[in-house]
Amino acid sequence: MYEGAVQDLIDELGRLPGVGPKGAQRIAFHLLQADSDDVTRLVTALTEVKAKVRFCDLCGNVAQAERCRICADPRRDQTAICVVEEPKDVVAIERTREFRGTYHVLGGAISPIDGIGPDDLRVRELMTRLASGDVQEVIIATDPNLEGEATATYLSRLLRDIGVTVTRLASGLPVGGDLEYADEVTLGRAFEGRRRVDA
Amino acid sequence: MYEGAVQDLIDELGRLPGVGPKGAQRIAFHLLQADSDDVTRLVTALTEVKAKVRFCDLCGNVAQAERCRICADPRRDQTAICVVEEPKDVVAIERTREFRGTYHVLGGAISPIDGIGPDDLRVRELMTRLASGDVQEVIIATDPNLEGEATATYLSRLLRDIGVTVTRLASGLPVGGDLEYADEVTLGRAFEGRRRVDA
Repeated sequence: MYEGAVQDLIDELGRLPGVGPKGAQRIAFHLLQADSDDVTRLVTALTEVKAKVRFCDLCGNVAQAERCRICADPRRDQTAICVVEEPKDVVAIERTREFRGTYHVLGGAISPIDGIGPDDLRVRELMTRLASGDVQEVIIATDPNLEGEATATYLSRLLRDIGVTVTRLASGLPVGGDLEYADEVTLGRAFEGRRRVDA
Repeated sequence: MYEGAVQDLIDELGRLPGVGPKGAQRIAFHLLQADSDDVTRLVTALTEVKAKVRFCDLCGNVAQAERCRICADPRRDQTAICVVEEPKDVVAIERTREFRGTYHVLGGAISPIDGIGPDDLRVRELMTRLASGDVQEVIIATDPNLEGEATATYLSRLLRDIGVTVTRLASGLPVGGDLEYADEVTLGRAFEGRRRVDA
C-alpha cells in the first residue's frame, strides 16, 4: 500500500515477534519522523548485537567473549548449576540475588508438539559439565508449564544416578497474589509443598 | 542486566512506540537467534527509509520524489482534495477505492493540550493549493474524535468564504457493528444523519 521503502520497512518490522501490522506501521511512521540520530542508534545496536554477541561456550548464555560474565567470574560457586530454558531466565534469577552458582541455558524446553526433543537442547553439554565431578547440586529452573515440567522430569531421571543432588524450584502461591484468584493446580501445589511453621 | 550490546539493543527497541521492556527483550532475543540475513534486511530497510523517503511537496504524504505517487498521477481528479491527519489515513481511504481525487496531509490535529495549533499543521500549504482556484470540493476526513472534530470545525470556518464546497465524512454506525453496543454519541450522530429510504 505504501511506496517502496516505507512498505519494505513495515514488512520487516511486522516479522518481529509481538509486532502486528498496525504496530509495524506505527513504528515505521515514528521512525520516519524521528531524528536521523535515533535511527542510526537503532541500526548500530542491531549491527553490533550480531557482530559482538555470541553464546557462552560453557553455559550457553549470551556472551561477548568465549565465556559469559557469570562463567568468567571466579567468585561464582562452580559446584552449583541452575538449569534454565532461556538467557532471559538467567536475568530473572540474577535479579533475585539468591543464587551465587553458575547457570546452564538449555535453549528451550522439550515439546513433542513443536518437534523439540532432548537432542535439540543443550543437554549433552550439561552432561559434559557434570562429568568433571565438581558439581554437587543441579537446580532445575525450567518454566512451571507443560514443556518445562516435561523437561524437568526428563533431566531429573537422567541425573538420578550420577551422584549429584537434583532440586527443582518450589511451586506455590505467588507472593502478593490473591488466594482466591490462584488456579487450582497452583493452589494444589501450594498445599502439596506446605511447610511446618515454627513460631 | 544484560551484557553491553544486548542491553543496548533492548534499550533502543524499548524506545519504539508500542514496544514495552518485555517486548523489547523478546525482539532482541529473536534477532540474536535469527539469521544474519534477516537482521541485515531490517537494517537495510531502516537505512533506506531514512535515505529515500521524504514528504510530498504538495500534499505532505510520504513520497520517494518531490511529488507522491497520488499527486504525480495525472488520472487523479485535481478538483477534489481530501484533508486527513496522517499518511496512514491516506492508505485507509485508498483501500476503499471510493475516492479518485487528491489528498492533503495535515500532519496531526489541533490539540491545545499537546500545544498543537493550526500553525503546527500544514494548513497554510492547503490554503496555497486552494488559491489556484481549480479546487471545487474539500472533504474533511480528520478523525472522529475531539482533536479531529476541533480541526474539522476550524477548517470549515476558514474555508467558508473562499467558494469551495466543504464536506465532512459521515458519522454513524459502523457497518457490521451491533446497534446495542454503539456508544451514545455515535448512535446520536447516526440519528442526526439519518437518510430517507426510497424503496
